[in-house]
Amino acid sequence: MSKSLPADSVGLVTPQSIHFTEPLPLASGRMLDSYTLMYESYGELNASKSNAVLICHALSGHHHAAGYHSPDDRKPGWWDSYIGPGKPIDTNKFFVVALNNIGGCHGSTGPSSINPATGKPWGPDFPKLRVRDWVSSQAALADKLGIDVWAAVIGGSLGGMQAMRWALEYPDRVRHCVVIASAMKLTAQNIAFNETARQAIIADPNFLGGRYLEHNTLPRDGLSVARMIGHITYLSDYAMGKKFGRDLRSGSFELGIDEPIEFQIESYLRYQGDTFANTFDANSYLLITKALDYFDLAREYNDDPVAAFSQAKAKFLVISFSTDWRFSPERSREIVNALMGANKAVSYADIESNFGHDAFLLPNARYQQVFSRYLAGIDTE
Amino acid sequence: MSKSLPADSVGLVTPQSIHFTEPLPLASGRMLDSYTLMYESYGELNASKSNAVLICHALSGHHHAAGYHSPDDRKPGWWDSYIGPGKPIDTNKFFVVALNNIGGCHGSTGPSSINPATGKPWGPDFPKLRVRDWVSSQAALADKLGIDVWAAVIGGSLGGMQAMRWALEYPDRVRHCVVIASAMKLTAQNIAFNETARQAIIADPNFLGGRYLEHNTLPRDGLSVARMIGHITYLSDYAMGKKFGRDLRSGSFELGIDEPIEFQIESYLRYQGDTFANTFDANSYLLITKALDYFDLAREYNDDPVAAFSQAKAKFLVISFSTDWRFSPERSREIVNALMGANKAVSYADIESNFGHDAFLLPNARYQQVFSRYLAGIDTE
Repeated sequence: MSKSLPADSVGLVTPQSIHFTEPLPLASGRMLDSYTLMYESYGELNASKSNAVLICHALSGHHHAAGYHSPDDRKPGWWDSYIGPGKPIDTNKFFVVALNNIGGCHGSTGPSSINPATGKPWGPDFPKLRVRDWVSSQAALADKLGIDVWAAVIGGSLGGMQAMRWALEYPDRVRHCVVIASAMKLTAQNIAFNETARQAIIADPNFLGGRYLEHNTLPRDGLSVARMIGHITYLSDYAMGKKFGRDLRSGSFELGIDEPIEFQIESYLRYQGDTFANTFDANSYLLITKALDYFDLAREYNDDPVAAFSQAKAKFLVISFSTDWRFSPERSREIVNALMGANKAVSYADIESNFGHDAFLLPNARYQQVFSRYLAGIDTE
Repeated sequence: MSKSLPADSVGLVTPQSIHFTEPLPLASGRMLDSYTLMYESYGELNASKSNAVLICHALSGHHHAAGYHSPDDRKPGWWDSYIGPGKPIDTNKFFVVALNNIGGCHGSTGPSSINPATGKPWGPDFPKLRVRDWVSSQAALADKLGIDVWAAVIGGSLGGMQAMRWALEYPDRVRHCVVIASAMKLTAQNIAFNETARQAIIADPNFLGGRYLEHNTLPRDGLSVARMIGHITYLSDYAMGKKFGRDLRSGSFELGIDEPIEFQIESYLRYQGDTFANTFDANSYLLITKALDYFDLAREYNDDPVAAFSQAKAKFLVISFSTDWRFSPERSREIVNALMGANKAVSYADIESNFGHDAFLLPNARYQQVFSRYLAGIDTE
């Protein structure tokens, strides 16, 4: 283990991949004949296999949730603040599994993978996915790993939707369900932001109907604008104001000066957009945001969330953040109310935070405390 | 007058244009050697010229604020709900002047006008503008119309910024200043939305560095995405939910169906974007949003809004809307607090509305009442 890694880190980790040759039936009626899942695990599976926890990722997440791939990595996995020895998802206690979902672009089968039928990248021909398809593929992964029952399925944002769907689709395979900064369905405003981001991608001339990889190009400008839109909505007005205010990066407000002014917030956003555009696949972005828009927990239960949650056997922890305006605390309270209506055990905390939707990824003492206490109470004997 | 126009309409109106050959010195230090302003007027200027009201428009506004250009017009001017006989800005009492600002694209000199020096459209070479430049050009218009003192200068959003700047730059020429859904400066989040919209335009391959007109093209896709971003932020989450919810325009949520789903909100937004892209100039959009970002009422007053407003001699009416998250009621209260600190007469109303920033354009009984009462109290003898 490296000299320089923090003591409460899971340390160096190596991603694993599993290839599945059993076809995966999809909600659309189509079939994914074979597929690969990239995953990482932290901690040790106990003899009774009763300490396994599944981490479901959000829009831009992946399997690298904690630790480091190399001692030289500048940053650990995306949820390293919450996964590790002594951390809320305590790897001294739990065997933690994090995967990259199908349809993604970090090693699992997705639009940028080769379509065996054509020998070319799937691109826009990759099957449309719904949240339940991710859950099915995660269940197939659990089977391979010999995990019959998850001690907990945990997710933030889109990950929370997967966790809830797990609790309804596989009630006997989930003992605890942790739903963070999520919702039973998106609002019209949320769909509107997603659609605007998609239009920015589709309008990029390098998008080429989604066949950019075949033409050795990428719709970077469109993806960058899409990420900028998303990024604004993940932060709170306060957090942006606190971090950047109206500070200038270049130029001057002085009268009599005819040069362009650039605010710090502008260059920051463009940097975020450009970085994302070089690392994320545009077709994955379209596919994942569509699944997010489609998700509606109670649709097939007569639009009755109480009826939906009546299927569940898990206990629930629901967490929201006070300044999250993309998945507001009201959405979490709707989940809590439906769970109570269905007579399910549910703990709920609305965490004070200035950091909007992004808060679910960031260190926060109260959030860590609530999260730790709940998971510490899970029986893994 | 047409058979079919409503009785409380100003009726058929004809836009006027005035050409100015007196150069306009700009805040940047540059000079606009000559320019044209398009304007409309409603009501009659009284003998003492004491009943003139100036309407300052917002980002996408123009000179056609009330009435109809033809009996066949489907829609009246953009603020027709508030300008007309018996309406809050009562044309039985006031002589109302509405103009298209320089830099705009509805007939006044702007980036799509011909640059006399080159014989080609100004395009990206049009001088950068600040809010004070609009105020200077509006003062030149007042001079031409023989109006020494406005009974009121009125504006919503960016128009409110112009009204406030009027009160500081020409304290003896403004008796009343009406500032609706506005702010003394934008927040970082607001700048972020504007910058994302600008990036969408600039990334459009038909933008061509702003010289699209010379190449007989338009950056329609970029402008459409820009408008979509703006449009979401002008509406409230509630208003979008109420109007569209998660209703589908096409496709089905049913499982086992592999066809694309389209939400109503998506097609609505794309329609808004496309319509705008065919009627608004991209360079004007960039220029106007930059002026919006730069605006900071108190910058040259040592960042002290009380010191800034100490210059003013006008009385003020400030109005905000409860669900406006782009120019929130908090921004209006900052204006009110600064005015009170400077011992100015100020009336303030926060109007309950579900319609976000757009509320300033829409009929609302309480808003109409407050607005009417205030303007009815203005002395025009």
